[in-house]
This record gives sequence, structure tokens and C-alpha cells, in this order.
Amino acid sequence: MASKNVGLQEIQLLQCFQQDRILSYDNNQLRVAIIGHINSMSALLILERAPFSTYPDQISQTIRKLSNVKSLGTNDIYYWYVAGTSSYLDDINVDTSQYPHDLKVNLIYPCTEQHIKKYSRQVPRIVVETPEIYREKVLPYIIRQRELDTLIWIWNIIEGKTEVNDVIFRTPIGQEADEGFLLLPDLNWDRSTKENLHLLALPERRDIWSIRDLKKKHLSWLRIMRQNLLEATVRTYNWLEADQVKMYVHYQPTYYHFHIHIVHVAMDVGKTMAVGKAIGLELIIEILEFMNGDQEQGIEQMTLHYTVGEASELWQKVFEPLKAKADGIDPPLR
Amino acid sequence: MASKNVGLQEIQLLQCFQQDRILSYDNNQLRVAIIGHINSMSALLILERAPFSTYPDQISQTIRKLSNVKSLGTNDIYYWYVAGTSSYLDDINVDTSQYPHDLKVNLIYPCTEQHIKKYSRQVPRIVVETPEIYREKVLPYIIRQRELDTLIWIWNIIEGKTEVNDVIFRTPIGQEADEGFLLLPDLNWDRSTKENLHLLALPERRDIWSIRDLKKKHLSWLRIMRQNLLEATVRTYNWLEADQVKMYVHYQPTYYHFHIHIVHVAMDVGKTMAVGKAIGLELIIEILEFMNGDQEQGIEQMTLHYTVGEASELWQKVFEPLKAKADGIDPPLR
Repeated sequence: MASKNVGLQEIQLLQCFQQDRILSYDNNQLRVAIIGHINSMSALLILERAPFSTYPDQISQTIRKLSNVKSLGTNDIYYWYVAGTSSYLDDINVDTSQYPHDLKVNLIYPCTEQHIKKYSRQVPRIVVETPEIYREKVLPYIIRQRELDTLIWIWNIIEGKTEVNDVIFRTPIGQEADEGFLLLPDLNWDRSTKENLHLLALPERRDIWSIRDLKKKHLSWLRIMRQNLLEATVRTYNWLEADQVKMYVHYQPTYYHFHIHIVHVAMDVGKTMAVGKAIGLELIIEILEFMNGDQEQGIEQMTLHYTVGEASELWQKVFEPLKAKADGIDPPLR
Repeated sequence: MASKNVGLQEIQLLQCFQQDRILSYDNNQLRVAIIGHINSMSALLILERAPFSTYPDQISQTIRKLSNVKSLGTNDIYYWYVAGTSSYLDDINVDTSQYPHDLKVNLIYPCTEQHIKKYSRQVPRIVVETPEIYREKVLPYIIRQRELDTLIWIWNIIEGKTEVNDVIFRTPIGQEADEGFLLLPDLNWDRSTKENLHLLALPERRDIWSIRDLKKKHLSWLRIMRQNLLEATVRTYNWLEADQVKMYVHYQPTYYHFHIHIVHVAMDVGKTMAVGKAIGLELIIEILEFMNGDQEQGIEQMTLHYTVGEASELWQKVFEPLKAKADGIDPPLR
């Protein structure tokens, strides 16, 4: 009984909170800290969006009780909405429009197997790519990917055939030799929220497919490229200072034309910028700088640990069979 | 008018969604993908918690309308709650207990200036720490930090004086020389959610303060340590496989006794695992392996780019004055 009373007192405390000002937002604005007072003493309140329930029935209930739904737009089979989480859809006496939207909702309809695969739980694994595994297993995979014409969209952009309007900055087409590059907004950037700035830099040269191709001889090219990217970025977005720009690359990348991610330093991104997937551009430069051996030595000789999804071809065709072999068991047939 | 009708049709579409099963959760369960159907065709629905409003009035309203508040516990000035976002606190006719909690709420009362500083907006900057800046500015800062007795809690744990119950695994105290280490759960891990597993590994040796102290001569120590940590982790948590374990270190770290973060590979963490703050343990090993020079060469000679908050001492006392000097302006007086 005592604990129940304590609980009530604590809830009353919360009800007495008087807001003074918002201190900060965190985690992509999913958490907010507010300073205020209770009975003339300072109090700090932190509100945080809670995880969704893992009970399917509760998720069903949430969907049934979506309130104040607003359609933001559609494109083909894709629909975007915002909504509130609680109820009263059916109660016409309640004006739900006054409640802020606390959910984003996407609908894909009708959807395909590809969509289902994309949104299915991707169990990640950490793999160990030795120089031998790279040469014998991963490089042939990369060559196959490139032969699938997966890079045509990039050639089109580099040659100025498509997405011309999307290009934020580019050196004169074909004039700068190895130093030629262009900047595009990443698909995930809304192009207006400053702290979510996310650009992709594509060099014009086509002989570097991933960080595995970077050698000591590319050091001065990398340094000039980095400087050019930094200058082009802060010139294009003059509200941005050079020490607010973060650059990194992915390994494995999504496609095998070397590209650099450029983001605002305050950006909160989860997996895309995490150890095991991303490496800072400056760290790569330093690794090459202090690497022993001649100008032909490079990242190729290192053993790289990185994350892959169990649904990926790299896992299923390269690393899972290697793991099964090491464990002395047959890999599952695919 | 046409667009309004389209909007209505789209909302009706959403209302017809029939849930089949949950496909996946993402972003620490703040996003959920559900497969279902509408009129016997497959449909995929993605629900995502929306960012909080940036309008102070809307935040006030959210606080005023907290519903179904439940106290989870208190400790001194700290209070934890869960709550719903919408209203009816005052309407005794509505049973709000049926609505799931979609907010986590923390209250600190009364709070101090330290709390306010901690939760104030931390504007991050990327700094360039050359070997010279490290030796002349950062190392003296680190020495000052160590002289402030900030490591006593670590000595106590290492010597078995405190937090004995929290230690998950340790080698026999003082018996393993440089190979001695212990594993603790990170404060942010609830110790039950598998995918949020987060451990800290503390070596017993006290001569390595950060990655800046790691040299080629430490390679075999690092490799043995890594293997021991991996084995201790999967032995302690037998639901975990070795290729689901990610290890990384921070630079700058929070305290200057070398320590390694061990997390589940599926864990979504924002800044703590991001480029500019975290480096994979295996990458450090490879950097040292391929570094030119003798056994005394190490990370000390590299230029490191990393993120610091503008409120940090490192920014205010080291990097901001350097930036101001480079810009030819006087740094603000502090």
C-alpha cells in the first residue's frame, strides 16, 4: 500500500511541472529535455518516445486506433501519412485535430516479395575478410555486381545524362582528370534540415571500386579530393563550417564505384555510420600514410572485420559457407 | 478538391489494413514493419515514432496531456515513469489504462546546474589532433584528468573492492599479469535484452590510458586480449555466437584507463558507435600490424579526427583556442 501512495505522489509531482524552456533534442528529436520548476525549485524533465510493443495484438490495436490521420502524399504504390496513436477515430464528438501527430506511417500497397525481404529482420553477422578471402571470394562477387550493369545510373550521372538537376556541385565534366567529382544529396536527406545534411561525393574516375583498391600511391589524390569536397560543401551550404563536416566511407558499400558520405557532424544516424560498416575518410588517409611498404601497398593487404546481413549474397555465398566449413558442418543448401 | 478526395481514399485504405504478422523492428524498436493485406492483396505497413515538435507550446501541451502515467521507481532526486501522449487525464469517464504507453518520462527534481549543463544542447565539432597537439595540449589534459582521482572507482573494481557483484567475468585478481581483465555490464544495458548487450572490458594493467598509447609492441597483447574477451563473452552468454560480438574503443574516451566496448552486433546505438568517436578494435590491430617502423611506433604518430562537444574542456581549452588562432581572432575569454 505504501508503494502505491508513493506512486501517486510521484505522479502528482509530474502534474505540477511548469515548463520554462526546452534545453535540447536528442536521437533525431525522439527525445527532448525540458527545464522548468515544481514549487519554485528547478526541475528537469526528459520525454522520450517509447519502443513499440513486441506483442502483435498491441500493434494491431495501435493500428486500429490510429487517430487524426493525415495523408502527406502518394507515389505509385507508396503512401505516406502522419497520425496520432490514440483512439477516438469512432467517437465523432472528440476533436482529435488538436493532438499532435506522434507517428509516421508508410504504406506500400500492393507490395511484392522484394519489399517483404527488404523489411524482414536482417540478422547481422560480423565477418572476417582476410586478403585471401577478398581476392578469391569477394572480388569475384564485386566483379559480378559490376557486370550486372548496376552502375549505369552512376555513369549517367557522371556523364551528365540524368539527375542533372539533383547535382549540387560538380567540377567541369571530364576536365579535371582524376580530380573530377560531383556532389549529390543522399536520398535520405530532406534537403532542408541542416543537422541531417547528407551528401554523396562521386569521383569521376572509375578505377577505384571500394577502399580495397586504395593504395599508398592514392594518398595525394585522397587528400586533394577531401579538401575539394570540404570546400565545395561549405561553399554550397554557407551555414556550415568546415569543422561541422564529417566524411566517411562504407565497407561493404552498396555499389562498387568509390563514393564518400558527407554528413553534418550533429547528425544522428544509426547503423549507417557505425563501426563495422563505416570508416572515417581521414582515418583511411592516416592508415595509408603510415603503412609500411612501397606505393603499391594498400588496404588490400589488411584483414577487415565488418557487418553483413544474413540475407545478403555475401553472407550466403561467401561467409556462411566459410563458417560452416570452419565448424565442420555442411552449409545449408540454397 | 480532388486532392482532398484522394487524401480521404488514402486514409480509408489505411483503415482497411488487416495485420498478418510483424516483419521486423528497427531503430531500437522505434520503428516496426508489419505485413498484412488490404482487399486480399499484400500490403506492408511501417509505423515509426515521430519526432517531438520544436514548438515549446506543443511540448507544454504534450506534458499537460500526459495520460495513464505510471511510476516505475525513484532514487533520490531521480524519478522514472511511463505514460501515454494523449489527454483525458481530467476526464474520469474514459478508461485510459487500455492505451499502451508510448512515452518514457524522466524527472530530476530538484535539479542542479550540472544536470542542466549535461542535458543542454551539445554542439559538436570535428577536431584535428596532430601528434604535436596530442603531446603538447591533449596529453597534459589527460594527465590532469588522471590526477583528479577520476579513476579511483576503476582501481576499486580492479582490486575487487567495489561492484564485486556487478563483475560478469574476471581473470583471477592479479594473477594474469598483463593479460588480466574483467567484464562489467555497461550502465546503459538493462542486462536482459539480448540485442542491447553492452559490456565494458577493463584490463588490469594501468599503463595504457587510451589508443594513443598503443604501439606495435602491444600487438600480441591486443590479439590475446581480444580472443580472451570474445571467449569470456560467448561463454557467459551462451545464446551469443562469436560472430555476433562487436568490439570497439572510443577516442576520446570518457575516462583514461584503456577499456573496450563489447556489444551485440544487432544493437542500434547512435553516437556512441559512430565514426568520429568509435574505432573497431580489429581495425586498430590491423593499423598497428601494417604500420611502418619498429616496435615503439604506434598510434601516437597519427593525426586523428574526432568529435568533441563545444561544452567540453577539450574544446574550450585546447581546440577552440587553436581554431581562433588559425582564424586570426581572439578566442572568447572563459
